[in-house]
Amino acid sequence: MTLLLPHHDGSPLYVSNAAPDLGDIVTVRLRVPQGYGPLHAVRTRSNPDNEPQWTDAVMTGSSDGWDWWDAPVTVGNRRHGYRWLLVHEDGRVEWLNQAGIHDIETRDTDDFALVARPAPPSWMTDAVMYQVFPDRFARSARADERPTPEWAIPAAWDEPVDPVLPGRSQQFYGGDLDGIVDKLDHLVGLGVNLLYLTPVFPARSNHRYDASSFLSIDPVVGGDDAYVRLIEAAHARGIRVIGDLTLNHSGDAHEWFRSALGSPGAPTEEFYYFTDDDNTTYESWLGTPTLPKFNWASARLRDVFVTDADSVVARWLKPPFSTDGWRIDVANMTGRLGDVDLNAEVRSLLRETMHAINPDALLVGEITNDASGDLQGDGWHGAMTYPSFTRPLWGWLAEPRNETYLTAQGEETNEPWFFGQPIGGIPRFTARQFVDAVVRFTAGIPWRVRLGNMQPLDTHDTGRFATHAPDAVIPVAVGLSMTLPGIPVVFAGDEFGVEGIDGELSRTPMPWGSENHPDVAARLALYRSLVELRRRHPVLGSGGLRWLHVDDETIIFVRESVDESVLVLATRGDADVSLAVGALADGDARRLVGDAVLDRTADGAHRLVATGPAFATWSLPGVAVPAKAG
Amino acid sequence: MTLLLPHHDGSPLYVSNAAPDLGDIVTVRLRVPQGYGPLHAVRTRSNPDNEPQWTDAVMTGSSDGWDWWDAPVTVGNRRHGYRWLLVHEDGRVEWLNQAGIHDIETRDTDDFALVARPAPPSWMTDAVMYQVFPDRFARSARADERPTPEWAIPAAWDEPVDPVLPGRSQQFYGGDLDGIVDKLDHLVGLGVNLLYLTPVFPARSNHRYDASSFLSIDPVVGGDDAYVRLIEAAHARGIRVIGDLTLNHSGDAHEWFRSALGSPGAPTEEFYYFTDDDNTTYESWLGTPTLPKFNWASARLRDVFVTDADSVVARWLKPPFSTDGWRIDVANMTGRLGDVDLNAEVRSLLRETMHAINPDALLVGEITNDASGDLQGDGWHGAMTYPSFTRPLWGWLAEPRNETYLTAQGEETNEPWFFGQPIGGIPRFTARQFVDAVVRFTAGIPWRVRLGNMQPLDTHDTGRFATHAPDAVIPVAVGLSMTLPGIPVVFAGDEFGVEGIDGELSRTPMPWGSENHPDVAARLALYRSLVELRRRHPVLGSGGLRWLHVDDETIIFVRESVDESVLVLATRGDADVSLAVGALADGDARRLVGDAVLDRTADGAHRLVATGPAFATWSLPGVAVPAKAG
Repeated sequence: MTLLLPHHDGSPLYVSNAAPDLGDIVTVRLRVPQGYGPLHAVRTRSNPDNEPQWTDAVMTGSSDGWDWWDAPVTVGNRRHGYRWLLVHEDGRVEWLNQAGIHDIETRDTDDFALVARPAPPSWMTDAVMYQVFPDRFARSARADERPTPEWAIPAAWDEPVDPVLPGRSQQFYGGDLDGIVDKLDHLVGLGVNLLYLTPVFPARSNHRYDASSFLSIDPVVGGDDAYVRLIEAAHARGIRVIGDLTLNHSGDAHEWFRSALGSPGAPTEEFYYFTDDDNTTYESWLGTPTLPKFNWASARLRDVFVTDADSVVARWLKPPFSTDGWRIDVANMTGRLGDVDLNAEVRSLLRETMHAINPDALLVGEITNDASGDLQGDGWHGAMTYPSFTRPLWGWLAEPRNETYLTAQGEETNEPWFFGQPIGGIPRFTARQFVDAVVRFTAGIPWRVRLGNMQPLDTHDTGRFATHAPDAVIPVAVGLSMTLPGIPVVFAGDEFGVEGIDGELSRTPMPWGSENHPDVAARLALYRSLVELRRRHPVLGSGGLRWLHVDDETIIFVRESVDESVLVLATRGDADVSLAVGALADGDARRLVGDAVLDRTADGAHRLVATGPAFATWSLPGVAVPAKAG
Repeated sequence: MTLLLPHHDGSPLYVSNAAPDLGDIVTVRLRVPQGYGPLHAVRTRSNPDNEPQWTDAVMTGSSDGWDWWDAPVTVGNRRHGYRWLLVHEDGRVEWLNQAGIHDIETRDTDDFALVARPAPPSWMTDAVMYQVFPDRFARSARADERPTPEWAIPAAWDEPVDPVLPGRSQQFYGGDLDGIVDKLDHLVGLGVNLLYLTPVFPARSNHRYDASSFLSIDPVVGGDDAYVRLIEAAHARGIRVIGDLTLNHSGDAHEWFRSALGSPGAPTEEFYYFTDDDNTTYESWLGTPTLPKFNWASARLRDVFVTDADSVVARWLKPPFSTDGWRIDVANMTGRLGDVDLNAEVRSLLRETMHAINPDALLVGEITNDASGDLQGDGWHGAMTYPSFTRPLWGWLAEPRNETYLTAQGEETNEPWFFGQPIGGIPRFTARQFVDAVVRFTAGIPWRVRLGNMQPLDTHDTGRFATHAPDAVIPVAVGLSMTLPGIPVVFAGDEFGVEGIDGELSRTPMPWGSENHPDVAARLALYRSLVELRRRHPVLGSGGLRWLHVDDETIIFVRESVDESVLVLATRGDADVSLAVGALADGDARRLVGDAVLDRTADGAHRLVATGPAFATWSLPGVAVPAKAG
């Protein structure tokens, strides 16, 4: 399907103000291919206070085969949805929203949306994230001086990861924060500029999602001093650092929990959901007793955790720690329990507090499934979420191995892990299904929030993409993570090509020293070139997105701003695609990465030819937007 | 497109308990055509506290060519969404939700949903609603004894409705409540059993949406005594009565508003949004100063309006008035203003209060556009809403007249009115687009709430459907309103064939005395037969819905229960459709209404043949559900 359609999205080409106040008039802009009409009228339909409001667009001019229409939208609500109405001269009516173009009316959820709240950090769209699971990243010399914690089952760095409990959570490689400092030049070499650390608070597991305190850094990874050293060293290299916070639960060894367990009337009993009079039974994360669930109805918890001047959230954002933001664990469940849903209150409180402390701090929530309901701009800047990129990417590009795997319980299974979904393995998608999923799971999210969504191939909670992916598709996958709207993420180890079948085995110790192995060297070079692509072309962070062609094997899209357009081809098979005439403006195209060929057909169409699998990009001139008429 | 697909909906065939409590285990059931698989597994995916939870279905048996699968779902939240997962033996994965079957993952909004709240009134699904606009329905002899109100511009009963202000809102025909009593036998003859009255509180307009009090019935329509007489007379005939309440605003003559206007510090000033220190400027409905907007942040307003023992809401539900429920005007905007959204609080409070007073009372909210966001079972039992039935019905069946019309401002226009949408007239839809719209705008609404949605051809706020519809399609439109899931609505006058181009001119005085005119007699007979169809076949109120065939001209579906199946054909053109073999069980079919022919093809398929436009229904045996295995 080769596309030449009216287009609008939330990028600066089409929206005059991405962070308006209530009552502001924002100019929104639509481009329509010449010959698409004739159009009788172009209008916007907003829905302030859930009542439709219409404005007329005026055609401001034409350029490069497109007519441009401007319309005013007065921001009525903090999430202000709007859609476009196109009335053809022949009476046909079309609606354009974030899901595409429609010949019947559309629903409110899929409207384009302005967000009348303070803007996310300006650096968000420049970020390329590098995720580190501290126990497995690097051991400094200092680590050898520390005793092994009581809970730990020590493992040598080259020992395989144990998929079965108790090793699963207690196997201990002893990576530490100074180990990360030692390797920061690796990050610099890779080109990443945002380090995301999974938890470093004291705990009794290798993953540390069972915090026993939020007031100090685990001495096992080096304590507060090492944390300061790491952040200062990272900042000195232009790398920001965000931490990982469990707002949904603590560990059962947490000081707040210990003081309330079995002690009715204890000041912190209201922090949890005790379910008996003796404070011995309680709600926990998915029934796991070591992870007691927080009760966010407690005003005191909100103070201590979020709003006090020395709250947990504040403490680590302020000097000397100066963390650049938080990734919130299990954000999807936070504040939710049966009849209670305080999620919106908690995420808004958190966002507002963080904004007051440091408006440049990032707040990303873990929402592993459909994130759109919680992602309307009132809390999370974006989400660590899988259905809008990672899962469909696996579906399209993975080729499941036929092997036997061990579950956490040590049972054998033949079904490759797929995000905990009992669907019998990894689904087999076409490129079209990949795009359908990306569109479906981003259509409900305001553009500026979508730009804050993480776009990993894998994380510490998933198998490694490379486990099931032929080498030849790795550039396609990494390339898409760098070029589709969202924050690209490299999970430490991916750049070495490490594997791991599930979210435990993916926590592979970094294979330092293998950098010169030819396969590793090639993979590292690939990552460097694709991170560089993203970093060198800001349009890939904040530019508009137009799909130009989708079929079962091939995706072609363009990211656009007034400064530059980057054309992207991603294909699993061979491709020979002629775009619609006029899909791209005339002008020189400069090849950036990849071996595909871009030329023009006799009728002037851009033609892309590649031997698949292939990922290729070209730089083209920016978009010429006619000046506003009159 | 002839369909033979796995099916589930919220009806009793497929859900063991439509009003569960939190923590209850509900059995949900899926039917799959034999030969659709082979299936490796069938599962449900719920999302309690926004975290996926899976259950396995077991095949309980087969009947009539279908395999039936049962799965347990534990109700985790008050709106508990779930979807089906089908894993094929060949590895293909499919998801089934309220929008249909999908080969990629689906979003939470379109999940099937259980509602863990008290059930709606049991009579809701048996109701056929008759809407009366009191000023235009009937004048009793008593009306002549009353003085014409000061605001009114008197009109004779046979005078045309004035489309232009001030006549638009002040033209006064003088219909009254005793006039309705006089005509109740007409309602009985028609077969309707639920009377919905637009406002009868004192006001200064013919529509009375500008209430000057909620504590008495307008003497102009007969006062409190007449109201009691009407309800008693209706109840004596088995007809329930619901009123119309403006929760969003009052009139500017309202006692609460008068006492606060210009009087800072007045007890009722907090009921409104005064925007200056002198209480002289204030928020109002769409900027209309005669309709000042209520501020639902006021606890006192909530008491006086909703929760006090003698609140407005309570007063009229209790004897001697014994109103059977409320239609809430502008429910979509209620409690919403810019940064404030108290809508969920207000609708829940209202629902809970009404339930405590009379669990048999109905609560319907006016949400003229996409209602799904507000229709999750916490407030409104259903909605007066247009995109899920009325608007696409017009799009499919209307044939716009080419005329000149007058707007409210007295300006001429050539564009037929279409629900206030500036889309250039009435869109022209295929049957397929009609079905697409029905599916799209019901997919986000729990089944049991969908059953409470009003399904009018038109109302006092719209043009009359017959204005733009050829006579031949009227049976199709009325038939669909009676047979699709939802509350059928007859707007008084439709059964006489009256016309009116917009929401003012549709408030046509009833043409009493014309009953024997051949056209009118035929139209009355049509309505009687289709209301009777609905009333005689409870499956049309509460049975499941399976689409069997959709093309550009023709829709075929079946409503099903264990007791009966009703097969429905609705077509604009000629139809000759053979359903998929196995779409319907064997068994005698009895023709109910319409002239179409139903027979069987050589291979056993049901074949439906009609000369269009046509509406036809047949009664078939109920669905045989295999007993649960083991």
